[in-house]
Amino acid sequence: MHEISPNHPRYHSLVLREKMAQAFKEGILADTALIAHGRGEAFDYILGEKTSLPAMKAIEAASATLLLAKIPVISVNGNTAVLAAEDVVKLAHLLSARIEINLFYRTPQRVVKVEELLKKAGAKEVLGKEGDEHVSVEGLEGPRSRAHPQGVHQADVVLVPLEDGDRAQALVASGKKVITIDLNPLSRTAQTASITIVDNLVRAIPLLIQEMKKLKECSREELEELVKKFDNKENISESLNLIAQHFKKS
Amino acid sequence: MHEISPNHPRYHSLVLREKMAQAFKEGILADTALIAHGRGEAFDYILGEKTSLPAMKAIEAASATLLLAKIPVISVNGNTAVLAAEDVVKLAHLLSARIEINLFYRTPQRVVKVEELLKKAGAKEVLGKEGDEHVSVEGLEGPRSRAHPQGVHQADVVLVPLEDGDRAQALVASGKKVITIDLNPLSRTAQTASITIVDNLVRAIPLLIQEMKKLKECSREELEELVKKFDNKENISESLNLIAQHFKKS
Repeated sequence: MHEISPNHPRYHSLVLREKMAQAFKEGILADTALIAHGRGEAFDYILGEKTSLPAMKAIEAASATLLLAKIPVISVNGNTAVLAAEDVVKLAHLLSARIEINLFYRTPQRVVKVEELLKKAGAKEVLGKEGDEHVSVEGLEGPRSRAHPQGVHQADVVLVPLEDGDRAQALVASGKKVITIDLNPLSRTAQTASITIVDNLVRAIPLLIQEMKKLKECSREELEELVKKFDNKENISESLNLIAQHFKKS
Repeated sequence: MHEISPNHPRYHSLVLREKMAQAFKEGILADTALIAHGRGEAFDYILGEKTSLPAMKAIEAASATLLLAKIPVISVNGNTAVLAAEDVVKLAHLLSARIEINLFYRTPQRVVKVEELLKKAGAKEVLGKEGDEHVSVEGLEGPRSRAHPQGVHQADVVLVPLEDGDRAQALVASGKKVITIDLNPLSRTAQTASITIVDNLVRAIPLLIQEMKKLKECSREELEELVKKFDNKENISESLNLIAQHFKKS
């Protein structure tokens, strides 16, 4: 590990970077996962490394949607597990949601390592393991298309922090509500998802948990009202305007 | 290598990503180099993965500055060598400039591998090798502070594609003209350098070569005029406005 001073203005970002580099050394992540993390770093930097007002609105709508879900499932890839395994497990517990592993570059070794991470963080059951039964999500090919019959396959709402565009599109096309956490408001995933939280997942997942605890007292009608008043396209535009302002001001 | 279809809208970017991942496997790059590449990818994506008009203006001023230099030196790190060794060598040849290796996370093995890359690309002499003599750039610590007495130390103009903020600042503070190629117009390096080319170096270095060939016929006075009319702060603002427009339009 490289030493990082807590006084560094971008301390938190540098700590996450080291965490990712370490996870790569341990074989949890593919090399391209590090590059993907770098892209996230850049967008987070542009957003000032803090949760914006539009992101908070999306978190509220996402919380209501998850609370209304019949079968909510959290789809986890390597980066999500490395960055936020404990929060994912807390969120799953709160929602009685299942956790399913889905890796872009799937290898049996990495699946085992991601499962270990989730178990260590307190997950009791993890779907999507090697040897687990699976059906294919229509429109996808290869291991990414895997969906567990009791997991993503039957879910009505899927939370997929960090997803690639093809899978996000295929999940939406299969009739599911897809909630994503994506720092790039222009990505295909961000543009396709039902609800896009333009934020860093290490901030967004704890905020989702907090918001969900707050909304737990709400009636079904009140939750439905919150979902209804949320417009994802409009929300993404607000994020884009914030970014535009950031560059203009500079 | 993962297979990439030439029809993919972001084919060039994906090819570079694979090149970086491969170079990492070969031990040429540190893990954090992949993350840095990801940050670059994000900014290049924001810029539409093409050279902008402000970047072209910076390339013109940089070319004139390099042609006017008494002792131009090109400072090369791992990512630059992996992405553009051949173009760096061509540029050095055109300018009779020396090439000096300077790595952020320097290890003897990586220095040797970067040297091999440069030699394979046609470099006759490379400075900054293990065991090479060196003095320290004031204000820097550790191996990054290394400057070869016949290289960066005595240079009046240093071209440093991809540089960290500390070293860019220290080089400017030591009285050198610093030309950088940095996709993030808000980075400390971009803000500190004498001339900042906000572009991907795989596009910018060939354009520098092309521009230099064009300007070779110019008189000293004409070149000085080109340098004088260039304002780096204004040029960076133009890049920032372009990015702001990009997000606003979306």
